Amino acid sequence: MSASEDFLKVARAAKEAATELAPLPRAPKDAALRAIADALVARSAEIIEANARDVVKARENGTSEYMIDRLSLTAGRVEVIAEAVRQIADLPDPVGEVVRGSTLPNGLELRQLRVPLGVVGIIYEGRPNVTVDAAALCLKSGNATLLRGSSSAYESNTVLVRVMQEALAGTAVPAGAVQLVPGQTRDSAKELMRARGLVDVLIPRGGASLISSVVQESTVPVIETGTGNCHVYVDAEADLDLAVEILLNAKAQRPSVCNAAETLLVHAAVADAFVPRALAALAGAGVTVHGDARIAAYGEAVVPAEEEDFRAEYLSLDIAAAVVDSLEDAVRHIREYGSAHTEAIVTRSVTAARRFVALVDSAAVAVNASTRFTDGGEFGFGAEIGISTQKLHARGPMGLPELTSTKWVYTGEGHLRTSEGTVIPSCGGASALD
Amino acid sequence: MSASEDFLKVARAAKEAATELAPLPRAPKDAALRAIADALVARSAEIIEANARDVVKARENGTSEYMIDRLSLTAGRVEVIAEAVRQIADLPDPVGEVVRGSTLPNGLELRQLRVPLGVVGIIYEGRPNVTVDAAALCLKSGNATLLRGSSSAYESNTVLVRVMQEALAGTAVPAGAVQLVPGQTRDSAKELMRARGLVDVLIPRGGASLISSVVQESTVPVIETGTGNCHVYVDAEADLDLAVEILLNAKAQRPSVCNAAETLLVHAAVADAFVPRALAALAGAGVTVHGDARIAAYGEAVVPAEEEDFRAEYLSLDIAAAVVDSLEDAVRHIREYGSAHTEAIVTRSVTAARRFVALVDSAAVAVNASTRFTDGGEFGFGAEIGISTQKLHARGPMGLPELTSTKWVYTGEGHLRTSEGTVIPSCGGASALD
Repeated sequence: MSASEDFLKVARAAKEAATELAPLPRAPKDAALRAIADALVARSAEIIEANARDVVKARENGTSEYMIDRLSLTAGRVEVIAEAVRQIADLPDPVGEVVRGSTLPNGLELRQLRVPLGVVGIIYEGRPNVTVDAAALCLKSGNATLLRGSSSAYESNTVLVRVMQEALAGTAVPAGAVQLVPGQTRDSAKELMRARGLVDVLIPRGGASLISSVVQESTVPVIETGTGNCHVYVDAEADLDLAVEILLNAKAQRPSVCNAAETLLVHAAVADAFVPRALAALAGAGVTVHGDARIAAYGEAVVPAEEEDFRAEYLSLDIAAAVVDSLEDAVRHIREYGSAHTEAIVTRSVTAARRFVALVDSAAVAVNASTRFTDGGEFGFGAEIGISTQKLHARGPMGLPELTSTKWVYTGEGHLRTSEGTVIPSCGGASALD
Repeated sequence: MSASEDFLKVARAAKEAATELAPLPRAPKDAALRAIADALVARSAEIIEANARDVVKARENGTSEYMIDRLSLTAGRVEVIAEAVRQIADLPDPVGEVVRGSTLPNGLELRQLRVPLGVVGIIYEGRPNVTVDAAALCLKSGNATLLRGSSSAYESNTVLVRVMQEALAGTAVPAGAVQLVPGQTRDSAKELMRARGLVDVLIPRGGASLISSVVQESTVPVIETGTGNCHVYVDAEADLDLAVEILLNAKAQRPSVCNAAETLLVHAAVADAFVPRALAALAGAGVTVHGDARIAAYGEAVVPAEEEDFRAEYLSLDIAAAVVDSLEDAVRHIREYGSAHTEAIVTRSVTAARRFVALVDSAAVAVNASTRFTDGGEFGFGAEIGISTQKLHARGPMGLPELTSTKWVYTGEGHLRTSEGTVIPSCGGASALD
């Protein structure tokens, strides 16, 4: 499939805008973000009207009321979206930060500077607030955005992008820095995935199937985000009161998010003391336990776990549970079935905590804390574009610095590299320095 | 194409070894590297014998003497390879470094630690020293390696890997940490490119066509390396004596490497004064100039440049050259034709230098210095796995830290996340902290 003219037009516009946007300092970017926030509020009637058309269509398609609620915009919700943009304007600018630097032995001044990535593609599902949030985070970090939202929010997204572009027209940031991929078909998503050379990175935000299809089909480099099969491991040395609290919080405080726990692993040494308490507490919170045979022995309400339960990201009031014979068995289970998002250990033992942290290969490891803290806001990033579960470029919550690359700059006074070392001809004739 | 059993066997062995290798501290890794170095020297007769079979085959295939020389191993060259391994053992271990860390307002202790990537695949051409060098750099950074070298060096690589594995057998590092992809067919390279889930990152080392085919075909994340169409831009405010020296050094000091200059851009304001001197100096160094019409006006020896000359990575005593009307035109030319490796500006003007650095979007920018300094050794990294020309994960010379990922670790004492902020049940009952 070759890209359509419509797609190439917006992708090239984004690339051109990225070139103009990249060298801008903080002040004009912040001013542009505030202009966007003001325009969203000023034009919220127009935005809500377009959104209403999406909602009507969703109702016709038999969409659930839960999803309709996620899709719907009100004046209050537009205000919240605008306020988030103002908060992004208040964050420090990652661009231009000197990441590393030194004066080399030959006198060259070497600096590694943070620079924007260029054009960031976002493929996402669900709520139209992502449209504004992603565009604002990219703009703040000096990147142009190519947005490809859910077709169910196409009318809303079209107006939101138009409002942002028109707000930018009065600022130093080129209006082309925020672009919506035209069309609502599957082809338009594929065009974005194949736009190597025009798009520098693609970030899918959504469910596991969206992410896996982007990873499979994209020739543009992808940052995988957000699938969370998080584990709580209750160690032989655990404080069992704490373990119950952490388990309940990790599972039930907000079950629909990626850092909620989906699997409980209990060391056999504390199973007799812990599992009955855990089952009672989980039942009290309305959680269904899908347990292996050793868990099932402690309660009649336990649903027998199939192997796929241990791979599941339920995002609901369900949890898989198993008894393990050692910390190493817990780690093996996590490696085998987990999604490398966040795993928690509850233990009083420094040795067990050290060992769990060393052996678990996930984006985040929590010691005596709920998995729910793996979050850009909790980590103090101020904003988050997603939680990376891959190992390249960014891992864990991604803030503004994760939307940047770097550039090496070295400054000399005529430094030449020779087989005998550096020579600087201007220093009173050719003088070898090293 | 599904992966062969032979391939899956070595890939799984590498993954298993990576799991054992990752948590090892520095000392056993360094001991393993020294054991490898010793074994290479002790068994150099065996290595040279296998290499001789590759050389015979290469001669039968009509390989050039230059390539035969690159392929050939001698006792002296094996000694050099072993010495490079010892130097890698002497470098600091990037694993375990705390990249960022803080105590959050709620008391959670947050650290971002450097961890190995896991299994690193290397697809490379040419010299068998890469086999050992890549394996040693990966081992030092806690990664297992899956090596897929040139079929012309298959006998040499087979023995080199066997010697390394047998040396590891007596150490704490699992012997499976170094693996050669079995088979010499194109399929074996494809198997490596499709081994998502078994291989964490793929680094191609070789010519532009190898790199581009890996980028197109790989479902494993790739780090692009090494294509260098580097530019020297002589600004209106340049010191022309320096400009001649930098141009000559960047082009002719070692023309076969990726950080050698391939294109000269001259500001129109200094063309009259500079181009005749540059042409004379380049001719004196045996360099053929492929110039646009404005360059050709200054010398009869100038070969008319086609558009592809400006895209070429000659790696020879050739250079493309053009006159530009402004610094911005130079930047546009570089964006259009360059490979985003290294671009140099020669100027006395701080303003021009700042502007060039801000506008050029390449891995490295040199101010009044030769492009030849873009190099891990020159930057003080001690070793280099390649020079990344992409923006994700690593950009520019890649040392040991670029072969790692990170992991977030947070430690609390029962920290729970609630809608009212953090709660720690053990602190004398449920107390909201923030």
